[in-house]
Amino acid sequence: MKLESLAIKYHDGELSILDQQALPLEEVWINCHTIQDMCDCIISLKVRGAPLIGIAAVLSLAQYAFQGASIQELRKAIQILVTTRPTAVNLKNYMDAIDKQLAQGNLVVAEMAKAIFLEDIELCEKMATHGANMLPFEATVLTYCNTGSLATAGMGTALGVIKKAHQAGKIKHVYACETRPLLQGARLTAWELEQAKIPYTLICDNMAGSLMRSQKIDCALVGADRIAMNGDTANKIGTYQVAILCKHHQIPFYVVAPYTTFDPACDGAKSIVIEQRAPEEVKGFMGKINFAPQKASVYNPSFDVTPGSLISGFIFDKGIYKADELLAMLN
Amino acid sequence: MKLESLAIKYHDGELSILDQQALPLEEVWINCHTIQDMCDCIISLKVRGAPLIGIAAVLSLAQYAFQGASIQELRKAIQILVTTRPTAVNLKNYMDAIDKQLAQGNLVVAEMAKAIFLEDIELCEKMATHGANMLPFEATVLTYCNTGSLATAGMGTALGVIKKAHQAGKIKHVYACETRPLLQGARLTAWELEQAKIPYTLICDNMAGSLMRSQKIDCALVGADRIAMNGDTANKIGTYQVAILCKHHQIPFYVVAPYTTFDPACDGAKSIVIEQRAPEEVKGFMGKINFAPQKASVYNPSFDVTPGSLISGFIFDKGIYKADELLAMLN
Repeated sequence: MKLESLAIKYHDGELSILDQQALPLEEVWINCHTIQDMCDCIISLKVRGAPLIGIAAVLSLAQYAFQGASIQELRKAIQILVTTRPTAVNLKNYMDAIDKQLAQGNLVVAEMAKAIFLEDIELCEKMATHGANMLPFEATVLTYCNTGSLATAGMGTALGVIKKAHQAGKIKHVYACETRPLLQGARLTAWELEQAKIPYTLICDNMAGSLMRSQKIDCALVGADRIAMNGDTANKIGTYQVAILCKHHQIPFYVVAPYTTFDPACDGAKSIVIEQRAPEEVKGFMGKINFAPQKASVYNPSFDVTPGSLISGFIFDKGIYKADELLAMLN
Repeated sequence: MKLESLAIKYHDGELSILDQQALPLEEVWINCHTIQDMCDCIISLKVRGAPLIGIAAVLSLAQYAFQGASIQELRKAIQILVTTRPTAVNLKNYMDAIDKQLAQGNLVVAEMAKAIFLEDIELCEKMATHGANMLPFEATVLTYCNTGSLATAGMGTALGVIKKAHQAGKIKHVYACETRPLLQGARLTAWELEQAKIPYTLICDNMAGSLMRSQKIDCALVGADRIAMNGDTANKIGTYQVAILCKHHQIPFYVVAPYTTFDPACDGAKSIVIEQRAPEEVKGFMGKINFAPQKASVYNPSFDVTPGSLISGFIFDKGIYKADELLAMLN
């Protein structure tokens, strides 16, 4: 079995990921040999993006199965993988689906991994098409964090929409927010936009308001890590305030996500666990530099929750919906 | 003549500034010998903060006068100093006042420098008192950029209020926004808060919204670089969106500034020149690290303008006023 995307490669038991902490300065591939290797890569954000985290975990299980792991060992591995990062739900959704099969004695990890991988590519394509059709010509779009081929197996969620719209000649300009503390916008989105030859400008996160006031921004497009049934959406920290800034400037704010980012067990913001990360991420930059006082206390939630009421629409693989249409869409 | 503050020292022709680009990792003093030395320090933000930029320029003129500069040479120096940074108006106000005297043949630079320096200390004290009286007990305050003793000759503007309130036992906690790209919050405000033993937490600028939603924030206190007659206020980039976030969460948003930050010639946002700075500031961190693609295009305004309508009150040396009371206060 051979599966390849921009950020992950699997070939008959060989599994490697593109180190997203090293990008864009270096393009380094890391070989993963064990479940623990993959857990380390997920926790350290070497592989990231809600859909891709799920896919990476699934491929790690496929590798483990290829190495001869028993159903019992695989189910134990699922228990470990699922705890690596608590907020993005795609991981949990995939792990639950595979565990369900394993619990029934069906050792179908490879088949499911392949199906999940290929489905994600197709989901990206569908979201991109819906989103690109919706965008006006000469669109100027603001985006946040990284939601492209480095976050999925396909062309991306929000960034997929931008790429598809660019192919259709509809993109005038993209503004990418740098996305502190780990700078996925400055490092990864900028890198992807450059590779796709899409005209873009990088801004610090605190410039979005000023930008919205001084330039015509047609809409903001962001991804999602978990969507509750009422439309409340967990995504990278800072997404919530982009939504507020959009509301203040009357700019449409869209969440782009596949159905795999839904959490049917979650009824709203209060049920979403927000991962808190190390203070060093805020006090410096990725261990390479520290600029704050050593003893500084830090608040470092990795995600925030944007209420459904601030979201103009959800661009799903099935189409574009309002928050109050989500329940009906899923049923 | 001897004048000393936390960030600048003048003693009979000897002038030195604390290098604010090196803080908090190193405490380095830089000796300035010429007008050009001071221009370099201002342009490179080694000395910064609207009131302190003005005071540093004034002391540089005093040094030049001490060295025997003629009135003509001093007036030429003023023309150079005033162009170093275009947005903060204190510099221009002070340069205009001194130039007016020089134009009348009065070589009173030393006397004026001393008066301006001592007045700023007193203005800080007054603002701090008004602001501290206004704050509730057990106050939790959000602040932005650096507005303390590193930005003035005295205890500061917004940070002066916080220090005074802390002395009165009224501060429960301070949240300091890091303030990208040059991180004056993470580096300078955190350092000052630590020195003053005020409990604080450092956040990335994109966490302010999430924080306001999850914690009780009593108010936001920010400084100013130029205040127009209608209350429109230029301040460090990102201030505008803090004001929008405050409005959304019904949190009072105060600007703390001395009368020297007023621009009587400016009727509103449209007349304020916003300094654009080098893309490298956004693509990395102070020349020590680069993280974005080398060719990335960047938007890097150093300031934005918050409309008077978003400002709950102005904490001046004279008292606390609303935007529509400013004209009457000044007359």
